[in-house]
Amino acid sequence: MVTASPIRQGRLTIAGLGPGALSQVTPEAAGALRQASDVIGYLPYVERARALLQAQGGAPPSIGFHASDNRVELERARLALELAAQGRQVVVVSSGDPGVFAMASAVFEAMERATPQQAAAWHALDVQVLPGITAMLAAAARAGAPLGHDFCCINLSDNLKPWPVIARRVQLAAEADFAMAFYNPRSRSRPEGFVRLLQLLRSHCEPQRLLVFARAVSTPQESLQVCSLQDAHPDMADMRTVVLVGSSTTRRVGPWVYTPRSYAAESPAPAAAGSAP
Amino acid sequence: MVTASPIRQGRLTIAGLGPGALSQVTPEAAGALRQASDVIGYLPYVERARALLQAQGGAPPSIGFHASDNRVELERARLALELAAQGRQVVVVSSGDPGVFAMASAVFEAMERATPQQAAAWHALDVQVLPGITAMLAAAARAGAPLGHDFCCINLSDNLKPWPVIARRVQLAAEADFAMAFYNPRSRSRPEGFVRLLQLLRSHCEPQRLLVFARAVSTPQESLQVCSLQDAHPDMADMRTVVLVGSSTTRRVGPWVYTPRSYAAESPAPAAAGSAP
Repeated sequence: MVTASPIRQGRLTIAGLGPGALSQVTPEAAGALRQASDVIGYLPYVERARALLQAQGGAPPSIGFHASDNRVELERARLALELAAQGRQVVVVSSGDPGVFAMASAVFEAMERATPQQAAAWHALDVQVLPGITAMLAAAARAGAPLGHDFCCINLSDNLKPWPVIARRVQLAAEADFAMAFYNPRSRSRPEGFVRLLQLLRSHCEPQRLLVFARAVSTPQESLQVCSLQDAHPDMADMRTVVLVGSSTTRRVGPWVYTPRSYAAESPAPAAAGSAP
Repeated sequence: MVTASPIRQGRLTIAGLGPGALSQVTPEAAGALRQASDVIGYLPYVERARALLQAQGGAPPSIGFHASDNRVELERARLALELAAQGRQVVVVSSGDPGVFAMASAVFEAMERATPQQAAAWHALDVQVLPGITAMLAAAARAGAPLGHDFCCINLSDNLKPWPVIARRVQLAAEADFAMAFYNPRSRSRPEGFVRLLQLLRSHCEPQRLLVFARAVSTPQESLQVCSLQDAHPDMADMRTVVLVGSSTTRRVGPWVYTPRSYAAESPAPAAAGSAP
């Protein structure tokens, strides 16, 4: 029996590499990289993928590494979709989790903006998103368990939403008495954003509110600072820092910071938190 | 030179095993299990740890497995602290991430409630929290990227906070136009909680709002349902389901659900979202 030579099915995998350490990359993500014909991403993450392959015996010589600069997420996503549509086994790498302020949304946004011809090919692709350890989870683990009760996660990056949206969300999050995780607290083009955030927090939360500044967790540059809101200073955060803000119940025990699982009747009512000093 | 025989330093590691699949356990967590003298946790998670060790060549015969029932988190935490204080290498296992509605907070709560004598020993312990893939990240990855913009995470479990706190938080989260992840939507002792949640969401969000019901992601029992708020039914969630609720900008592209990274001027202002139908 003669069969036609099969056209190889392209695949697009969007994989999270975790916060930095190779020991926090899931076997699933590492396995996807070993199967890749092409690895696409922001330069430092492509380098991390290369290091991971090296640690596992080296990258196949045929593999293509496509590193690009920051702020070109949509172009990168289109390249990934085009290569996968040609039948290649493409892995887009993100730091942390690809679904949290990272490349997964960019890929779906590129799909949405496809021409009709592209859409026919791209929507039929085998696309997989592989989760990773996102920065706030790695940061929280180092500090103890500050996200052990209800929390929210806000990206302060400058070019994604107007400042009034951020300000309103922080106010509502404080009223809800959520712990809060802030990504990208100080971006190059909006260095004043974090200064304004501290002012906002001081108008909605008590001075003793606990903050965690977790920088480059799981890498050799890791540092961790815990302080109260009244002692926090904008210079404690840079582009590699995740800032965690406790809820009204977050506290210290020994060297640790944690938020209790239960929110007892004696906790400040979330409805009243907005009127705190 | 004669030195005293060293007392072995106890260690307490609180490790996240991810949502279920062994391929989503970090090498760091797997490594901690291989070094353990004692593994402590809720029965199904201890069984998962045993399976992981088995897959890696088998557990050492000397290892102690201490499985307990649900709802005894504090007792479990105390056992872990006591064994570590005796010099043992204890690993407490959680599903998902140990810092998100899981065992890390319980361990620090037990530390806080220690007697002065216990506190002296427990606060000096070498404690490590190892992050894991929490359920909402695994669920989001299967659906696409519904958590690609700002979001919050709320535990509906019945015994941890009064219902008015939950209701107020959901209202404020809708006003902030966060995507939302709900853990433990239907617990045994509060089956009506999720019915009330759907009613709440319907009073704050438009009928077309997208919901994702992700059950037992990464296990053989996995299922995924996507529907609009108007078509959602309480029976779509059970105790193994994570429910993701999109923001006003969450949309479909092909078979995927995603939230764009940017929140443009034409997006509904979060301040106005509370007055949506």
